[in-house]
Amino acid sequence: MDIKTIAKTISLIEDNSNQKKTILSKLYAKTGSAHRIGITGPPGAGKSSLINILIQKLRSKNKKVAVICIDPTSPFSGGAILGDRIRMLKHYSDPGVYIRSMASRNASGGLSLASSEASDVLDAHGFDVIIFETLGVGQVEIDVMNEADTVAVVLVPESGDDIQMMKSGLIEIADIYVVNKSDRSGANRLTTTLTNMLETNPNPIENNWDIPVLNTNALSNKGIDNLLDSINEHFRYMKTEGVLAIKTNDRYERQVKSTILARLSHFLWNDKNKTDFLKKELNKDISNRLSPIELVDLILKEEQY
Amino acid sequence: MDIKTIAKTISLIEDNSNQKKTILSKLYAKTGSAHRIGITGPPGAGKSSLINILIQKLRSKNKKVAVICIDPTSPFSGGAILGDRIRMLKHYSDPGVYIRSMASRNASGGLSLASSEASDVLDAHGFDVIIFETLGVGQVEIDVMNEADTVAVVLVPESGDDIQMMKSGLIEIADIYVVNKSDRSGANRLTTTLTNMLETNPNPIENNWDIPVLNTNALSNKGIDNLLDSINEHFRYMKTEGVLAIKTNDRYERQVKSTILARLSHFLWNDKNKTDFLKKELNKDISNRLSPIELVDLILKEEQY
Repeated sequence: MDIKTIAKTISLIEDNSNQKKTILSKLYAKTGSAHRIGITGPPGAGKSSLINILIQKLRSKNKKVAVICIDPTSPFSGGAILGDRIRMLKHYSDPGVYIRSMASRNASGGLSLASSEASDVLDAHGFDVIIFETLGVGQVEIDVMNEADTVAVVLVPESGDDIQMMKSGLIEIADIYVVNKSDRSGANRLTTTLTNMLETNPNPIENNWDIPVLNTNALSNKGIDNLLDSINEHFRYMKTEGVLAIKTNDRYERQVKSTILARLSHFLWNDKNKTDFLKKELNKDISNRLSPIELVDLILKEEQY
Repeated sequence: MDIKTIAKTISLIEDNSNQKKTILSKLYAKTGSAHRIGITGPPGAGKSSLINILIQKLRSKNKKVAVICIDPTSPFSGGAILGDRIRMLKHYSDPGVYIRSMASRNASGGLSLASSEASDVLDAHGFDVIIFETLGVGQVEIDVMNEADTVAVVLVPESGDDIQMMKSGLIEIADIYVVNKSDRSGANRLTTTLTNMLETNPNPIENNWDIPVLNTNALSNKGIDNLLDSINEHFRYMKTEGVLAIKTNDRYERQVKSTILARLSHFLWNDKNKTDFLKKELNKDISNRLSPIELVDLILKEEQY
């Protein structure tokens, strides 16, 4: 399948087309070979430059690489962030590289479901490495990172100031820490802080994995081989210890549950009966309305829940 | 109802106790008086200090004030963020002030539903102002801000560097911009940037509201009266233009929909039949499994969806 067909397939899934079910049903059995890597961190940490070099290194080993860039909610931010990713564009003519942006807005069932389904398409069609790139530490971004097998959190020496933000959620999902732009002052201090913080691995299913803290400099190509070695080592570790199977099963379970919720929600709110119940209450004054929770009972009674 | 009883009531709701339905059913009709204010912005912007002064000002006008602090997901971050809020503690002995932290973890139906329900309790029990404080720009935080009537986004001159992050989502939810620590260099430049960015109000239901960009300095008490005036003016604006009624109805609708999804999800995954379907697939190799979407069909067929 060529890149254009793959792009079209992912769009059909993302847009919830009629063909979605047929497409996804056929390909799931062919998944399970790709290494799904999440790369996240604050803006300005140099994630795009790092991914760009990783693509080059992986291509030189003849690996097929896909990147799914998760964009924040706002239409306002499109420009700035795409600009940051422009340097990945040089790979667009390479049929072994596929780069796609996904935005929060048009994902039914959530962006993590959409990115998970897209990566199944890529996995089934022979991509060896699928990179999810997210920005920051929101719940949506963390949910997307959970779809990856290996998560690298990229920080810069200046991130010490963002330690509050960095701590919120990120520390629990990192398999590898990267201190990028490590020639800048403060790099050693951040490396030490992280190393001390990581005395125990907070991930209960990965307690035999020692989270490395790596120094890189994407622009001068420093530490990139090390990073790639750690990424591969984590993949091997997960296979040996059965962690990969657990993550694959968790991903399956999340896909099933998210799809069911999206489907039920769609079903309920396309039912005229249900929306009429809601409209009727909304037309009353607050003091005369059923409480939201009583209306829920009324709506679900019909469904015998 | 005294503060202790209110705290216990909110806990019963948050913990999904048997009394939740009775409590929420009784009080909804008594809501509709409070002004729900969201205050958000990056870490270090001085939100807690600002809220602290707002509490003082509102108390001097004899208004009852509640603050719901939304904490990021991580247990690791607890310390740092609570430390930042310690200065609010001096209000703890004042029966006209109620301060509560809510964490992402134990909220069934999401943190925005939990905070919305908690604010209904406070509204029904005579709190005039309910402040939601969130940190950063994740989807969860934006969802919580959507539960507020008036959203103030607090930035500092240094936030210019965070413009990417700031843009992502925040710009669409701000009713008021606050440039705090405005004595620092860069404040004028940020104010100008924001003013230029705001030539049109991106909020379709509030296109007659000119989003102000205010300068404050929480520590020297500068600009706080102005901020409070703008907050009150926005409340009056919403009442006059019917915007408040729309927001109240949207909040009602979101509560109903989130509660239904939480209830259906709970129902489905407590059904042994459904979990057996899932377990059966998880025990097969990927190449022999039903795809997630086919399993969804199988599970929902029983429910005739």
